[in-house]
Amino acid sequence: MNARALPEKRPAEWSEDGILACLSRHFPLTHPSLLLGRGDDCAVLKAGRPLAVSTDLFLEDTHFRGAYFTPEDMGYKALAVNVSDLAGCGARPQGFTLCLGLPAWADMAWLDAFFGGMAQLADSRNMVLAGGDLSRCDKLTVSVTVWGEPSDPGDFLVRGGSMPGDILFVTGPLGLARVGLSVLESHGRKALESWPAACAAHLRPRPHVDEGLMLARAGFNARPPALMDISDGIMRDLPRLLGLTGELSATCPEKRSGLGAQIVLARGQLHPEVLRHAEQKGKNPVHEALLGGEDYCLLGSCAPDMLPPLHAAIPGLTSIGVVTDGGGIVCNHEPLDSLASMRGFDHFEPHAGES
Amino acid sequence: MNARALPEKRPAEWSEDGILACLSRHFPLTHPSLLLGRGDDCAVLKAGRPLAVSTDLFLEDTHFRGAYFTPEDMGYKALAVNVSDLAGCGARPQGFTLCLGLPAWADMAWLDAFFGGMAQLADSRNMVLAGGDLSRCDKLTVSVTVWGEPSDPGDFLVRGGSMPGDILFVTGPLGLARVGLSVLESHGRKALESWPAACAAHLRPRPHVDEGLMLARAGFNARPPALMDISDGIMRDLPRLLGLTGELSATCPEKRSGLGAQIVLARGQLHPEVLRHAEQKGKNPVHEALLGGEDYCLLGSCAPDMLPPLHAAIPGLTSIGVVTDGGGIVCNHEPLDSLASMRGFDHFEPHAGES
Repeated sequence: MNARALPEKRPAEWSEDGILACLSRHFPLTHPSLLLGRGDDCAVLKAGRPLAVSTDLFLEDTHFRGAYFTPEDMGYKALAVNVSDLAGCGARPQGFTLCLGLPAWADMAWLDAFFGGMAQLADSRNMVLAGGDLSRCDKLTVSVTVWGEPSDPGDFLVRGGSMPGDILFVTGPLGLARVGLSVLESHGRKALESWPAACAAHLRPRPHVDEGLMLARAGFNARPPALMDISDGIMRDLPRLLGLTGELSATCPEKRSGLGAQIVLARGQLHPEVLRHAEQKGKNPVHEALLGGEDYCLLGSCAPDMLPPLHAAIPGLTSIGVVTDGGGIVCNHEPLDSLASMRGFDHFEPHAGES
Repeated sequence: MNARALPEKRPAEWSEDGILACLSRHFPLTHPSLLLGRGDDCAVLKAGRPLAVSTDLFLEDTHFRGAYFTPEDMGYKALAVNVSDLAGCGARPQGFTLCLGLPAWADMAWLDAFFGGMAQLADSRNMVLAGGDLSRCDKLTVSVTVWGEPSDPGDFLVRGGSMPGDILFVTGPLGLARVGLSVLESHGRKALESWPAACAAHLRPRPHVDEGLMLARAGFNARPPALMDISDGIMRDLPRLLGLTGELSATCPEKRSGLGAQIVLARGQLHPEVLRHAEQKGKNPVHEALLGGEDYCLLGSCAPDMLPPLHAAIPGLTSIGVVTDGGGIVCNHEPLDSLASMRGFDHFEPHAGES
C-alpha cells in the first residue's frame, strides 16, 4: 500500500504512518491464501488452483452520491460490486487490492469509517486486502480488484452454454435497487424511512456469494448452470447471458448464439416497494423490474431437472422463464426490443452504449 | 470488459460494440496463462504457481499532464508503472486488468491511440488484458492491476533481508525522470529537443523486467538480493528497502530493522542531462539524484560476492554504497536526514506523507 501522494497538509495523524496504522486496524496483514501481504512492490498469492479475477471502478457522481452515501456505505459498496462479480462466477472470494483517490475534504475520521464499511464485508467473506495505492484526486475515486477460488467441489460458472428449454432464474428481487436510487436521489437519506428495502438495495447490496457457490456445486456432476450477476438490469444483462452481445459477438457476429428467451414476470413476483413506487409514478412495475440496474443478484439458466434441488437449496431463487431457440427476448408476450428505447440503469448519465 | 457508463452521445462508432471492437484490435482475447479471457464477470487465470500482484492509480494532473503526454504515452505509462512493480519483485509479467474513467473529450481516435501505446508495452512483455471496467469521469482516470509469475528458476524478490556489508545497487540513472518532469512542466513537448533522455524517462519509463528476472535467477542458489523499484526517489525508497518505514514498522516500531547505509554517489555516475539541469538551476546534482522520483529502475542490495556476476549480466547495474549496522543513511558523508526537509517527488502536490 503506497501512500505517496496524499491530500493536502493535515494534522500529524494524517501522515503516511497514520494512514497505514488506520489501515492495519481494519485489515489484517496475513491470510492463508497469501505468501506475502501488503508492504512490498507486489503481494504474492499462493494460487495453487485457478483464480477468478475481476475489477470495477466506483466513482463519485457516476456510481454513487456523496450526499446520501455514508463513508461506511461507500467502503462497503465499492467492495460489494466487485464481490458480486465473483458471485456471478460461483467463486469463493479470497482477496482484493484497493486503489483510492482521496479528495481534499477527506480526513482520518472519514477514512476510518470508509475502511470500516469495507472491512465489514471483507471480514464477513474472509477476504484479505493484499495491496493498493493511495493518491490525491478531485473526486473520490475507488478501484478494486478482487480474486477468488473455485467452490469445492465445483468449477467456475460462466455465461453462454444455455440451451433451448433451460429454465431462467434469478436469486433476488428485480428493480429494487433502481427504486432505491430514484427515491434517494429525490429525498436523500430521508427516503430510508419509507423505502427501507429499496434504499438498502442501493446503498448496501448483498453479493450473492453463497448462492453462486451452491450453483457451482450443483453443476459439478451435471451440465453446469450458465450464470452472471445482474449489474445493468435484466434487459441489458440477459442478452449477455445468452451470448447475444459482448466483445466476441461485437467482433465476430457469426458467433452470436441465436438463442432467445420467454420471460414470465407476474406482479406478484415483484417486491412490494417496487410495486408501490411504480404505482406512485404511474409506471409499469414489470418494465421497471426489467430495466432495473445494480440488482447485484444472480441471473442464470439451468436444465429443468436441476430446478427442484436448486429451489430447495436457495430460498430466494425464482424462475422467470425459459430459454428458446431464437425468437428474440419476449417478456409477458411483449418483445423486449420494444423496451429498448427506455433507458436501462445509467448511473446519472446519458447512454451511448446502445447503438 | 464492461462499457456500461460511457461518455456522452457520440457518433455510432462510439458505442459499446465500437469500443469493444477497438479493444479487440489492440489486445488479443486469449493467452496461455488464461482459462477464460475478457467478456465474463471474471477472467480465470490458470495460476498453478504463486502470483505476484500489484495495482496503481494513474490520474490526470496527479500523475501525468494531458498537456504534454500523447495518448500513446498515457496508455504506455499507465501500464509501465505497474509492470515496474513486477520488475521490483523479479517477476515475469503475465497479465493485467484495466479500469478506465473517460472524460467527455475522449473520442475513438484518442482511445485507439491510448490502447495502442498500452498494447505496445503489453505485446513486448507478452501480457494479456484479461478484463476491466469503463466509465465516465471528469478527468482521465486509469487504474491497472498486474500479475506475474516467478522466474524459472528463481523466487520473487522482496524488500528487507539486507545485511550489514551488503552492496547497494541501482539498475539505471537516478533523477533523470525528475529532470524530465521539470523541463516538460516548463516547456511542454518542446523540451524533448534539448532533454531527450530526461523527457523519455518521464513519458515512457522502461520497466526493468529483464534486470529483475536476472536478479531473481542470481538469487536462486544463493542468499537472494533485496529488491524494489524506485518510484519515489532513493531518499524515500531506500528506507523502505532497509525495513525502516512501511505499514509493519508504522504499527510495530520494534520491528524496524535498525540498518543504515553509506551511499557514495559521484557526479561522474550521474546522467549528463541531470548534471546539465542541476548546473542551470544552481542545484547540487547529487541531491537531485537522491530526491529523484519515478526513476522506475531497480534498487537492491546483495552480498559482495554476488556483485561481479551481476555486473556482467546487467550492464546498467551500478554500485551506490554499502549497507551498515545502524548509523542512519549517509550519502557522500552527509546524513540523508539533512535532505529530509527538501521534498521528494510529489506529483504536483504538497506532501503530507512526511510526518
